[in-house]
Amino acid sequence: MNRRLLDVLTGEEPDATPVWLMRQAGRYLPGYRTLRESHSILELAKDPALAAQVAEEPTRRFDVDAAIVFADIIHPLEGLGLEVRLDPGQGPVVPAPIRRAEDLRRLETPLDAEGRTGFVGATIRKLRETVSLPIIGFSAAPFTLACYALQGSYEREFPEVRRRIASDADFFRRFMMVLSASVIEYLRMQEKAGAQVIQLFDTWAGVLSESQYSTLVAPFLAEVLTSVEVPTIYFSTSSAHLLGIQASLGATALSVDWRMGLDEVAKIAGDSLVLQGNLDPTALLDSRETMERAAKDVLASVPRGTSHIFNLGHGVLPTTDPQRVKELVDLVHSETERG
Amino acid sequence: MNRRLLDVLTGEEPDATPVWLMRQAGRYLPGYRTLRESHSILELAKDPALAAQVAEEPTRRFDVDAAIVFADIIHPLEGLGLEVRLDPGQGPVVPAPIRRAEDLRRLETPLDAEGRTGFVGATIRKLRETVSLPIIGFSAAPFTLACYALQGSYEREFPEVRRRIASDADFFRRFMMVLSASVIEYLRMQEKAGAQVIQLFDTWAGVLSESQYSTLVAPFLAEVLTSVEVPTIYFSTSSAHLLGIQASLGATALSVDWRMGLDEVAKIAGDSLVLQGNLDPTALLDSRETMERAAKDVLASVPRGTSHIFNLGHGVLPTTDPQRVKELVDLVHSETERG
Repeated sequence: MNRRLLDVLTGEEPDATPVWLMRQAGRYLPGYRTLRESHSILELAKDPALAAQVAEEPTRRFDVDAAIVFADIIHPLEGLGLEVRLDPGQGPVVPAPIRRAEDLRRLETPLDAEGRTGFVGATIRKLRETVSLPIIGFSAAPFTLACYALQGSYEREFPEVRRRIASDADFFRRFMMVLSASVIEYLRMQEKAGAQVIQLFDTWAGVLSESQYSTLVAPFLAEVLTSVEVPTIYFSTSSAHLLGIQASLGATALSVDWRMGLDEVAKIAGDSLVLQGNLDPTALLDSRETMERAAKDVLASVPRGTSHIFNLGHGVLPTTDPQRVKELVDLVHSETERG
Repeated sequence: MNRRLLDVLTGEEPDATPVWLMRQAGRYLPGYRTLRESHSILELAKDPALAAQVAEEPTRRFDVDAAIVFADIIHPLEGLGLEVRLDPGQGPVVPAPIRRAEDLRRLETPLDAEGRTGFVGATIRKLRETVSLPIIGFSAAPFTLACYALQGSYEREFPEVRRRIASDADFFRRFMMVLSASVIEYLRMQEKAGAQVIQLFDTWAGVLSESQYSTLVAPFLAEVLTSVEVPTIYFSTSSAHLLGIQASLGATALSVDWRMGLDEVAKIAGDSLVLQGNLDPTALLDSRETMERAAKDVLASVPRGTSHIFNLGHGVLPTTDPQRVKELVDLVHSETERG
């Protein structure tokens, strides 16, 4: 069993820097594309045999140090009884968004995680049998779930969400309470199924102001992150202004995008947090030389004394050549091997 | 002549905090909407009489302290001979984007600002006659122009632009040189026509890493900002990670979005820079009480010793009630009047 990722997350020294990539199981892989010809994303995610097959593909092709369960971020919303569609090219769509306090009453709380989202646990159990790597479970963070539920679908900077926060913070707080409780159930279910690490994706946190985030989001995150016993990784994008708060949420690791150098991140986050990241995924779209230069820059930016998980600053892009990913994973290991 | 804005920008004490709003002349105004029924945006922008009429509408309705010339950000690109369309709901579209060094040769450089974009100067001259407020001229910053020219149209985080920077920084630098020279011509033309303040819109700067921005963007911005004699305002969004660099570009004022409190911005930017901003535009979409609470929070966040121009963190949203804008402008003046 490859323990590099767990070593870093538990304060041990690994024999090389662990590396895995967000969306390492995705549209850039031929096996995945073939499966998608006959199955929707949700069909794959809800069939543990197929979902495990998707999650395994990158572990067979590349020397990555972790597998991440294949699932969609919408399961906890669906599990609460909200109708959610995945529209091609548009992402999650909630046809009847949450708009007022009454709408909260139609949610089926608390989340019956085993009954409504148990397929994710089943996928994790399968992966534990077939893959000799740590299995990462995950959920979207409560705020990012709120973005889709309140706005109805992705919209740049989610104006409807910010409007609701400005006009009715109490309503927003009540909704965050419901979502946090559900995410906790969802993550505990994954932990029980065998997830050895949990990552929270808070992709849209950066649209909020520092003060909104610290009063209306951070307290819920702290609760979620301390509700599981395994190490946790917190991911967000475009949120340099939130970094100081994010460093004290209680996550084991912070996963950051390419916008700040890891040395600059460490200055704010301190050296007790593990840092994950942060190669710009577009650096994988070109020549091997471009990729190598950019990857070495990331490795060089890790300050002495800071523990590092190599990853991208956001997910692998669909037009990425799998060969570049293979080269990247091997480069990270060969550059960081400890004799 | 109302001099509040010029006072703040030249180190004088105004009798109240000046206020104007990005996109104060826009789709939320009935007069503008009526004109748009029979004219495209470019028809309005290229007809100085109509463009002046559009720019004047908010100055007649509200007690704002500045008028901004009505123009589109694409004029300097068009002026270089690039075909650019404005597609409804999509913004600027460049059907044949710049992809390689040869493409730079088809640009008609240097920009003949008077010949190709002189209508913007004509609008400014008209406004100087009819409006007794300072007239703000503007341009998109070189990088934000590069985003459209390289990507072809708005795409979240402009992956093609980042890919080109990672794979061929020299090509990107050459293009930035062309764009900066053009923006300088364009702004000097506006200054000569009578613009008393210049704002640079670098809306997409925040997609870049700190290191990309400091080496490939900041040097050009410094050149542009020091090429005019009137005071300058530099605007970008989602760029907390760039703030330290932005503070030393040579702009008179920094215009920031709602993500950081102005007190936090001032800690990084120092107190020799004027700060402009930063009410979340969604705070204008609801009740008067919501708007007042949020606007007072902005005013309270301005540190003693920091000069302030009240504005939004981004443009007025199309669904805004003009009545809210009127109330906001009056509130800013009444709250900040110096006896």
